[in-house]
Amino acid sequence: MRWIDVSIPMGPGMTVWPGDRAFEFSASSRISEGAGCNVSEVTFVTHAGTHMDAPWHFEDGGKKLHEMDSSVFFGDALLIDLPDVDIVTAGDLGSAPLPRRVLFKTRNSTLPVNGPFARDYVALSPDASRRCVDDGVKLVGVDYLSVAPFHQPGQETHHILLGNDVLVVEGLVLKGLRTGTYPFVVLPLPLLGADGAPCRAFIGDRDLDS
Amino acid sequence: MRWIDVSIPMGPGMTVWPGDRAFEFSASSRISEGAGCNVSEVTFVTHAGTHMDAPWHFEDGGKKLHEMDSSVFFGDALLIDLPDVDIVTAGDLGSAPLPRRVLFKTRNSTLPVNGPFARDYVALSPDASRRCVDDGVKLVGVDYLSVAPFHQPGQETHHILLGNDVLVVEGLVLKGLRTGTYPFVVLPLPLLGADGAPCRAFIGDRDLDS
Repeated sequence: MRWIDVSIPMGPGMTVWPGDRAFEFSASSRISEGAGCNVSEVTFVTHAGTHMDAPWHFEDGGKKLHEMDSSVFFGDALLIDLPDVDIVTAGDLGSAPLPRRVLFKTRNSTLPVNGPFARDYVALSPDASRRCVDDGVKLVGVDYLSVAPFHQPGQETHHILLGNDVLVVEGLVLKGLRTGTYPFVVLPLPLLGADGAPCRAFIGDRDLDS
Repeated sequence: MRWIDVSIPMGPGMTVWPGDRAFEFSASSRISEGAGCNVSEVTFVTHAGTHMDAPWHFEDGGKKLHEMDSSVFFGDALLIDLPDVDIVTAGDLGSAPLPRRVLFKTRNSTLPVNGPFARDYVALSPDASRRCVDDGVKLVGVDYLSVAPFHQPGQETHHILLGNDVLVVEGLVLKGLRTGTYPFVVLPLPLLGADGAPCRAFIGDRDLDS
């Protein structure tokens, strides 16, 4: 099976949430300067690039990333392509029960990964989030840096998902993919005691089967 | 299939290479201090914990991590358990051709992941590295922070592997696993222009089949 990288490359200039510290990459040692090998240092926030939110990101009594069930990192995911919506609502989700892992592809996937932050990105409404929880979804993926609209009063979208231990993957690069069920692997950095972590994510190119 | 995490948890106090900057984790915002959500910042070297070496780590004209073929992150791997050796030599590798991905489990797997750095860890000799290259191995994994003995003169082990575009995964946690062929997924952080990157790695628990 061919695996397609759906992760944002991490480098200086990558888009970050307004107010977040920028990604930093610097030389620790360089062969060109006489060192025995090249080693670098990186600094970034736990919600940089393609990343996973743990419940503790928004729920102060919630689970931290290393306390979540890692079995949800593996398996099939239903990708739903909604190119024409400004917000994903429950009405966009059809009547069939949603599977364990759902990825939402929207017009966000046409945005550059290192452009200015786009406040009008497409996100999930509270009723879409509630529908995911009611259907037993354990992982929700979206194609911009937040699953919720920018500055949503009350942060309902996050609270509904994270308050119900749904893992949220933000910043997926889903350009070119059609609605369908795909093998999907998303592995976060193994940070201890964290509210989230950058991830590497791949989708398998098995043919459309939904 | 059940997936077993074979990655070192990343947190303050984790073992690092002598002289490398320690792993740092700090609060960026905390709900308990009035913020809307919990966000953290991390700093670490590209060779912290379970990580991948790109050729550029030791070869100044070599490929950087994002230039490597990501198909080697997926598939089966042969795990070879060598509990009684002080160094892995070509003579320990049998006569059958080695497959595309090989993991070496040694007594290193009994060491704690946050203990003092152990200079007498088990590593690969140059002749074992040469054998891997000759057999067409594309990924070599080991269970301590380097594939080469500590302060190896000339760094032959690294040069033979990285100079031939073999990806090296260091710091795997292979305790409890027996010799056999296993599904193995190892996904590095998608750092651009890097000499290496921390990874998350899992082994599938399909029955011994070698």
